[in-house]
Amino acid sequence: MIKHLRSAGDLDAATATLILDTAAEMAALSGREVKKLPALRGRTVVNLFYEDSTRTRISFEAAAKRLSADVINFSAKGSSVSKGESLKDTALTLQAMGADAVVIRHSASGAPHRLSNWVDGSVVNAGDGTHEHPTQALLDAYTMRSRLGRLDGLKVAVVGDVLHSRVARSNVLLLSTLGAEVTLVGPPTLIPLDVVAALSKTTKVSYDLDSVLPDSDVVMMLRVQTERMQDSFFPSAREYSRRYGLDVTRMRKLPEHAIVMHPGPMNRGMEIAPEVADSPRSTIVEQVANGVSVRMAVLYLLLGGK
Amino acid sequence: MIKHLRSAGDLDAATATLILDTAAEMAALSGREVKKLPALRGRTVVNLFYEDSTRTRISFEAAAKRLSADVINFSAKGSSVSKGESLKDTALTLQAMGADAVVIRHSASGAPHRLSNWVDGSVVNAGDGTHEHPTQALLDAYTMRSRLGRLDGLKVAVVGDVLHSRVARSNVLLLSTLGAEVTLVGPPTLIPLDVVAALSKTTKVSYDLDSVLPDSDVVMMLRVQTERMQDSFFPSAREYSRRYGLDVTRMRKLPEHAIVMHPGPMNRGMEIAPEVADSPRSTIVEQVANGVSVRMAVLYLLLGGK
Amino acid sequence: MIKHLRSAGDLDAATATLILDTAAEMAALSGREVKKLPALRGRTVVNLFYEDSTRTRISFEAAAKRLSADVINFSAKGSSVSKGESLKDTALTLQAMGADAVVIRHSASGAPHRLSNWVDGSVVNAGDGTHEHPTQALLDAYTMRSRLGRLDGLKVAVVGDVLHSRVARSNVLLLSTLGAEVTLVGPPTLIPLDVVAALSKTTKVSYDLDSVLPDSDVVMMLRVQTERMQDSFFPSAREYSRRYGLDVTRMRKLPEHAIVMHPGPMNRGMEIAPEVADSPRSTIVEQVANGVSVRMAVLYLLLGGK
Repeated sequence: MIKHLRSAGDLDAATATLILDTAAEMAALSGREVKKLPALRGRTVVNLFYEDSTRTRISFEAAAKRLSADVINFSAKGSSVSKGESLKDTALTLQAMGADAVVIRHSASGAPHRLSNWVDGSVVNAGDGTHEHPTQALLDAYTMRSRLGRLDGLKVAVVGDVLHSRVARSNVLLLSTLGAEVTLVGPPTLIPLDVVAALSKTTKVSYDLDSVLPDSDVVMMLRVQTERMQDSFFPSAREYSRRYGLDVTRMRKLPEHAIVMHPGPMNRGMEIAPEVADSPRSTIVEQVANGVSVRMAVLYLLLGGK
Repeated sequence: MIKHLRSAGDLDAATATLILDTAAEMAALSGREVKKLPALRGRTVVNLFYEDSTRTRISFEAAAKRLSADVINFSAKGSSVSKGESLKDTALTLQAMGADAVVIRHSASGAPHRLSNWVDGSVVNAGDGTHEHPTQALLDAYTMRSRLGRLDGLKVAVVGDVLHSRVARSNVLLLSTLGAEVTLVGPPTLIPLDVVAALSKTTKVSYDLDSVLPDSDVVMMLRVQTERMQDSFFPSAREYSRRYGLDVTRMRKLPEHAIVMHPGPMNRGMEIAPEVADSPRSTIVEQVANGVSVRMAVLYLLLGGK
Repeated sequence: MIKHLRSAGDLDAATATLILDTAAEMAALSGREVKKLPALRGRTVVNLFYEDSTRTRISFEAAAKRLSADVINFSAKGSSVSKGESLKDTALTLQAMGADAVVIRHSASGAPHRLSNWVDGSVVNAGDGTHEHPTQALLDAYTMRSRLGRLDGLKVAVVGDVLHSRVARSNVLLLSTLGAEVTLVGPPTLIPLDVVAALSKTTKVSYDLDSVLPDSDVVMMLRVQTERMQDSFFPSAREYSRRYGLDVTRMRKLPEHAIVMHPGPMNRGMEIAPEVADSPRSTIVEQVANGVSVRMAVLYLLLGGK
């Protein structure tokens, strides 16, 4: 087993599959009302969040507590701690306090890699800048596998602002490893071809959502970060929604069995219509539930729980 | 047993009495140094606070932890989450994470009702706008019963800004159910007669505190929200304090056995004089202690603890 | 055993030594992978922080959780609670909720003393204004003893803004009690001779760091609070660093066995050079680790754990 989860690229197919299988066991235990497992009793998990992300923090906190770990929340936002040198001092502090795992969310791409040089415990990337969000990719893969029965050969369209999306990057890496065929869809200004080529040789690109939908098993809508829409390379909101938003008409172009995913929180009416978000094809609520199981599996395996 | 506690009106006399009796058992266990009960082991209680209220949050947190539940604090204040649609998305998130109970404080009246449509777990209203604060009414009733031995027939004066007080509304509902006789006292502009009539047919209204005191078993002073004092219908601070503040002279008009209550935090010198707040008649500190017992009872009964 | 730890002056030599010995046992247990002790099961420790101090809060939280206590964090900063009267009301609230220990950080010197009048539980001072920070002094003494084998007769130089340093004050008191010889070093405007004389009769003062180093077993650098550097009695940053900063050249003047301490967080390049902070003489990371052991010992002994 690997020690850290800093990037979806840390995972080979066997390790990724082990995590998904373990998550399925965790979910089965929770379903049988075994809500508390003693696996990480006495272990300390620190949530080190330099950016606000209540949902992700709560998901990791719930996962760690179900494994009986002690959880310490360290919200660095607004405090004097910031980048570079002081991340190191914070790391040494957590190290000295005996943190067994540090779950880090940071605005700087690469912060989890740097952190892992300074602590003995395991580092889990909970989102770093525009770089990666590997547990999101794992919960997405878990959701696809549980809904559609497999990952190998699955056709997945990832739609939106790929340029700035850590969710997209982690998904491309993990899905490629697991044999799915990813097509990135969005405005040309938001799909950097050189980056895509560097991530994966098998990933395709399209600028036309309507032509991709009929041949997709999964369509994953990325969240539009509305503050980015001020940028000159971003289409207008109306234009974006018209060309890349998933409404009911467009959803009907999908095959019967296809599912609709979104990492949340959604901009209802922008990248996804409310009727689509609430349709039976939508896995959005499942994704959240699966997030806890997948994070339980990651913490359990990284910390060598027994 | 009911599933949610959204309003004091959810409670019939038998259920309210069961909660008070269970709270008494919880207090007795704590008194015998049984500080930790295993009743809710493995259950997750989420404190979803859209408004700051450290005291209420801590009281629920302490109650849940004494029952061995896992507690996750979700402070939505200042974050991007707000009203309407996004409360629904937050609810779905908590639902997916398997929250067994959600304790919600929200600035919008009715938010707990809406939330209960979206989650399978129990919803406990910890204060919604100017609407209700039912656990406050329960701890007040518990305090009256433990000091005075009964609730039926008790004469209770509730004094202050009734118009904006969720504490007053919940108390009127609960005390009426349990047979106490409530008189609302305050400036005419702050006592809406139509609202009072809709809440309870037996509740009286008076604008003259001095005439009500000699016949009261309980006088409950409401907190003046100083930001409201800017409003045109509010008397000046000096005028308010002179006519409706409880000072030592006024306290002497109460019967020998009568008690003085306040939900806290107090504006000492405004609605209550320091000597009154610290007198043996005052139950203000007891109310806080009783709050933990009552909230233990509510969580225990709603979650079907054993 | 004492009930509160409000000041390092509360501790006589026997009690201080008992705390250090107990901390050593706690550290030994942690080293043998006994991460969770049942000693304070069912007890509630409240972290009442009126000032931000994530590191100190986390250290106490980790210590309490390793002893199986329930921890409730109460961050009063930014909320309406502030000084004087309302500290009393907050105290009564915590008291009523059954807090077994309150760990308080407050900007007002003396707040822990006042708090201890209002609660039945134990009060631990986690830093009050410019007054004291006794657990910092204890972890410093622990670190000296574990590195150098003894405290009696040890020569300790404390360098920097003594005037505003609660760390310096607590260290002077505790080290004098335990037989170490303290020399305070810094600019004359930052070393108040009357205060020093009142604290301890044996403490020396010097304005010349270079002359003190060759005869020191320990040099403890105080953190420069950069907001203080605006004050007229403060030297310029360049001047301060030149005369009182510890760089590599100066470090070489220390005896072979001497250690370098800092309470953190450091201003690297100001009071301490990065090469010194990261040198083998530096105990800065050990101090953090020892902080958890010492705080475990304090909570264990104050609460009469078994």
